[in-house]
Amino acid sequence: MQPAAVSGEPGFEPLVVLELASDIKEEAVVWLLSRIRDPQQNGGAELLVEHLGPGVRPQEKENPNLFLVGASWQRLLSGAEDLGLFKEYSDGSMRGFTCSNKHNFKDFTGDGDSFLSMAECQHIIKHELDTLRAREETHVPGYPQAKLYPGKSIIRRLQSKRILIQMFPLHHKEELKRLSFSWYQKVRLSLQPLDSIRHYYGEGQALYFGFLEYFTFALVPMALIGVPYYLFDWEDYDKYVIFAVFNLVWCTVILELWKRRSASLAYQWGTLSRKQAFEEPRPGFHGVLGFNPVTGREEPLYSNAKRQLRIYLVSLPFVLLCLYLSLYVMMVYFLLEGWVLSIHDENPTFWTGVLLFIPSVAYAVVIEAMNLIYRYAAEFLTEWENHRLESSYQNHLVLKVLVYNFFNCFASLFYIAFVMQDMVLLRQSLATLLITSQILNQFMEAFLPYWLQRRRNKKMVRKVQGRRVLEDKALPLAEQVRLEADMSTYLGTFDDYLELFLLFGYVSLFSCVYPLAAVLVVLNNITEVYSDAFKMCHVFKRPFADPAANIGVWQLAFEAMSVIAVVTNCALIGMSPQVRAYFPHSETQLILWTVAVEHGLLALKFILTFLIPDVPKHIQIKLARIEFESLEALKKKKMLEASEPSKTVLC
Amino acid sequence: MQPAAVSGEPGFEPLVVLELASDIKEEAVVWLLSRIRDPQQNGGAELLVEHLGPGVRPQEKENPNLFLVGASWQRLLSGAEDLGLFKEYSDGSMRGFTCSNKHNFKDFTGDGDSFLSMAECQHIIKHELDTLRAREETHVPGYPQAKLYPGKSIIRRLQSKRILIQMFPLHHKEELKRLSFSWYQKVRLSLQPLDSIRHYYGEGQALYFGFLEYFTFALVPMALIGVPYYLFDWEDYDKYVIFAVFNLVWCTVILELWKRRSASLAYQWGTLSRKQAFEEPRPGFHGVLGFNPVTGREEPLYSNAKRQLRIYLVSLPFVLLCLYLSLYVMMVYFLLEGWVLSIHDENPTFWTGVLLFIPSVAYAVVIEAMNLIYRYAAEFLTEWENHRLESSYQNHLVLKVLVYNFFNCFASLFYIAFVMQDMVLLRQSLATLLITSQILNQFMEAFLPYWLQRRRNKKMVRKVQGRRVLEDKALPLAEQVRLEADMSTYLGTFDDYLELFLLFGYVSLFSCVYPLAAVLVVLNNITEVYSDAFKMCHVFKRPFADPAANIGVWQLAFEAMSVIAVVTNCALIGMSPQVRAYFPHSETQLILWTVAVEHGLLALKFILTFLIPDVPKHIQIKLARIEFESLEALKKKKMLEASEPSKTVLC
Repeated sequence: MQPAAVSGEPGFEPLVVLELASDIKEEAVVWLLSRIRDPQQNGGAELLVEHLGPGVRPQEKENPNLFLVGASWQRLLSGAEDLGLFKEYSDGSMRGFTCSNKHNFKDFTGDGDSFLSMAECQHIIKHELDTLRAREETHVPGYPQAKLYPGKSIIRRLQSKRILIQMFPLHHKEELKRLSFSWYQKVRLSLQPLDSIRHYYGEGQALYFGFLEYFTFALVPMALIGVPYYLFDWEDYDKYVIFAVFNLVWCTVILELWKRRSASLAYQWGTLSRKQAFEEPRPGFHGVLGFNPVTGREEPLYSNAKRQLRIYLVSLPFVLLCLYLSLYVMMVYFLLEGWVLSIHDENPTFWTGVLLFIPSVAYAVVIEAMNLIYRYAAEFLTEWENHRLESSYQNHLVLKVLVYNFFNCFASLFYIAFVMQDMVLLRQSLATLLITSQILNQFMEAFLPYWLQRRRNKKMVRKVQGRRVLEDKALPLAEQVRLEADMSTYLGTFDDYLELFLLFGYVSLFSCVYPLAAVLVVLNNITEVYSDAFKMCHVFKRPFADPAANIGVWQLAFEAMSVIAVVTNCALIGMSPQVRAYFPHSETQLILWTVAVEHGLLALKFILTFLIPDVPKHIQIKLARIEFESLEALKKKKMLEASEPSKTVLC
Repeated sequence: MQPAAVSGEPGFEPLVVLELASDIKEEAVVWLLSRIRDPQQNGGAELLVEHLGPGVRPQEKENPNLFLVGASWQRLLSGAEDLGLFKEYSDGSMRGFTCSNKHNFKDFTGDGDSFLSMAECQHIIKHELDTLRAREETHVPGYPQAKLYPGKSIIRRLQSKRILIQMFPLHHKEELKRLSFSWYQKVRLSLQPLDSIRHYYGEGQALYFGFLEYFTFALVPMALIGVPYYLFDWEDYDKYVIFAVFNLVWCTVILELWKRRSASLAYQWGTLSRKQAFEEPRPGFHGVLGFNPVTGREEPLYSNAKRQLRIYLVSLPFVLLCLYLSLYVMMVYFLLEGWVLSIHDENPTFWTGVLLFIPSVAYAVVIEAMNLIYRYAAEFLTEWENHRLESSYQNHLVLKVLVYNFFNCFASLFYIAFVMQDMVLLRQSLATLLITSQILNQFMEAFLPYWLQRRRNKKMVRKVQGRRVLEDKALPLAEQVRLEADMSTYLGTFDDYLELFLLFGYVSLFSCVYPLAAVLVVLNNITEVYSDAFKMCHVFKRPFADPAANIGVWQLAFEAMSVIAVVTNCALIGMSPQVRAYFPHSETQLILWTVAVEHGLLALKFILTFLIPDVPKHIQIKLARIEFESLEALKKKKMLEASEPSKTVLC
């Protein structure tokens, strides 16, 4: 098998790597390459592809079928127009890029070959490959079982049949070095280079880091208030009313302000008003072949009613069952703990002292195991629900995992706070949870994968030349590509957001009983920035850019948490000895007042949400101006057409 | 003064009437008419205008300056395109009308002269007149104080200086007769002819009547449950738990379903996806002349910060003060009532019996007076807040009036229910309120204005000929126009919606203690349909069509009410002797349970709101298809351009 390996064609910049199965049939490779290279008029993608030559010391187990994909600048520009990419216009506003108008865009100079960022180019190539459709082929040549029909995305089929193993964008060593220096290698404290992150990794990543930074800053006032509380009122834990009220206002306001900040960032990055292209079905989606009612194209269809049945009759009961189980395990833990404590109190020996730790350890192990199993089950169930779109799959998965994690993390705290009403224990548990989860997370997330990667890296460097000390600096292209192909795949911002969500929960729900929580979370977030940045740059494969306009379903999750925080804080206030002192004779009065205040606060929260506009005024004006101008242009065009003498019908 | 009175030009169909001041200067009339008649290339409106001749027996006090405005069919079609009117396409979907594509629209036959409904034509003419802009004029000729600047809407300036007294669309006698027959003169019960209403009065009106009908049907199940409750459990008023639970679910579900119904109607009428044109400042808006940041046109600007200050520092405290006052009056009433009752109990005579009625009567009178004064104050304040847009003015006015009316109507009921905890009195008050307000409303709204109008009508008929018995049937045009000009102006659906809102409140908040409420409201709604329909057809001037896509701020108001209903119903359930019996020893337990259930229900409500899609699936698909097709068409156009050999740059 020898596909055309035209290495070294002038002007070819490799952007995306395709790794095909090592035992792929040659006819399939020839067919795929010709489809990728074919001009667009013939239904091809009109991209450049090269075969990656073998490494310096080729090994037996190395996959020979790696291909590099690139494109001419003109192709990339027309791809940018297809995608509806927004760029800064000469008047400072953001507009959809069009080739006919290209010279009016701000950074477009000469041929425009530095106009698009590398992440954008890679995203364009991914989009063009994803929308490369079958014509008359009924199956992939050489693979009769890999069925095709007119309009089916070729890449999706190759992926689902494991003929295409992976497709990933290449790193740019120089840029990466510059980015990682300004991001986390500088010693002095500074804001994160969000624009550079967006330039290199795309909007989805940049929004995550933007949110992480925003959240950290938002916590600073709370941390500043928390320190004196901790220092001067340590054992006076009924003084938390003021802190709880502060909590309430804080968590509503910061989420509203984040929406505005997110809209500003997304506007500036051109994703706010960009129209999403029509979404393709996800690779795992299956169904009976039929006609899509929207596009009229042939594609698998799956009845929505069936999916709803699966969700409500299987997934929902399963999730509820898991929640119940988790609750049950928690109750067993509390029982065991009480039992062990009573044994130790009766007859304290060294062995009963050791026994004291056993319930906690066992509980932690069981929880961790249940979390793992649940995550696996949630992925299986969501896959089985057979969602047509990747976004809908993600939303259902996020929701399932979110609810369960929330329950696992907070159920015991709620139990201690409201059933046992033991504020000292609550504070201890909170501190233990925060500190251990923090240390574990940092270790599991960044240092362990880094260590593994480093070992792999060194091996590769040694393999290539054995003489250099500086690692992965001057590796030849073939080696770099193979190295990156072996890196673990970054699975998206899911786990990072989940971690932030749980931290937000600790702070907003209970920090009034443990004011140092905010301080701990701030410290955690600062190290989190570094470890996340590091992991993005050196541990994982580069991910494709994701043109996100907001943090999506997480905004909703954080808002739901802030509503729960209002309820929890009000209940904590109502239970505080300070407030109880006002109603010495009637508990009913106390509860009624607490409930009334809580309802008032909830109402206030919704009114605030409603009153604070989600998009800042100056961006609203810019958006309205573009809308207005396009309407006016349309009107003018019509007037011109109407007054043209060549037209016969005036209409 | 003799403006050109070209009465009887062939093909001229009068659509809109302009009434100018009777003492207007001739130069202003000549200028205005020429601006209206000028072709569009010269910045005119290109419409037809005629002077309305004097009536059969002209009287001294008759205004001679009435003008009829019409337009050629081609002008109306191009106006429809300007407005972005949506019409049914040949494939059954709704699309924005364009002249170049006109023959592909479903009902377009021949020249298309029955393609647009009369209401649409009138709306187009209104829009063209409203957007007729000043060019170099610095003031209206003959009126140096009526300043103009390039881009200022001429009609708005004439209105604000009272040179233009009114502008209204003409009735179409034949169509009106057909409509009113199918609407309310048929004896047999049937659905309202919503499509015909929309055809004649436009989407805003039709949506109101659609909502009224929907609301009535939604009440039927509740009325059906209410009757047996009333018949068999009359004195057993602690059996309302089931009814309250039903209430809860009912009010959430019907509002969600209404959103879907409303989206269906709006889609079918073409207003759902129609883009609103850029909104002009409302006539009363004033400020320093500057450049609008969106349009770049010169127009008055008023700082948003100043407006916010006026709202939060003046209007909001004023509203709160009024609410406090209203509460105070209520407390005085309850005190008086108690005092009078105690006098009567001590020494009952005829006079103390009469005295018993005095507090109620006095309270009713005071409430009515306060309502009137408040309405006046609210209008004044909202005017003073100086909103730029009519829609924003309306929203702020609605909000002010809504809150106050809610308070006035329900405060005493809440007091009786939760402070006095007297369910018998609550039921009596509810019944009294429902029945009296119903009778009063029907009388004040329809019969009184009708009677006045009828007198005026008869006088006119007598004046014209004196020999016909059939009234307003064969009146000549001049008389018909003058008659309509004298009719009262319809002030929009505000009061109609407010009435429905209060009825919805009575039913959803308290109907569990008075199950007949739903029956009464259903009866009221049925008569309401007839009286509203009658008043639209015969009492008021025809209003301009309002291309609404939903019921706007009222949807929000109804939803807020349904949240309050959840809280109220839960509290009523918690207070019922039935539920109390479950917690014989601990009131605290009872309250905690009630609150927990209430929070659960509120959460369920929000989840339901989130889960039920606002737009039905089949309409979502149609909208997505149009979106997709326009993207595809754009792509195809670009491909064609790129492959055209005449183009030099390939891009």
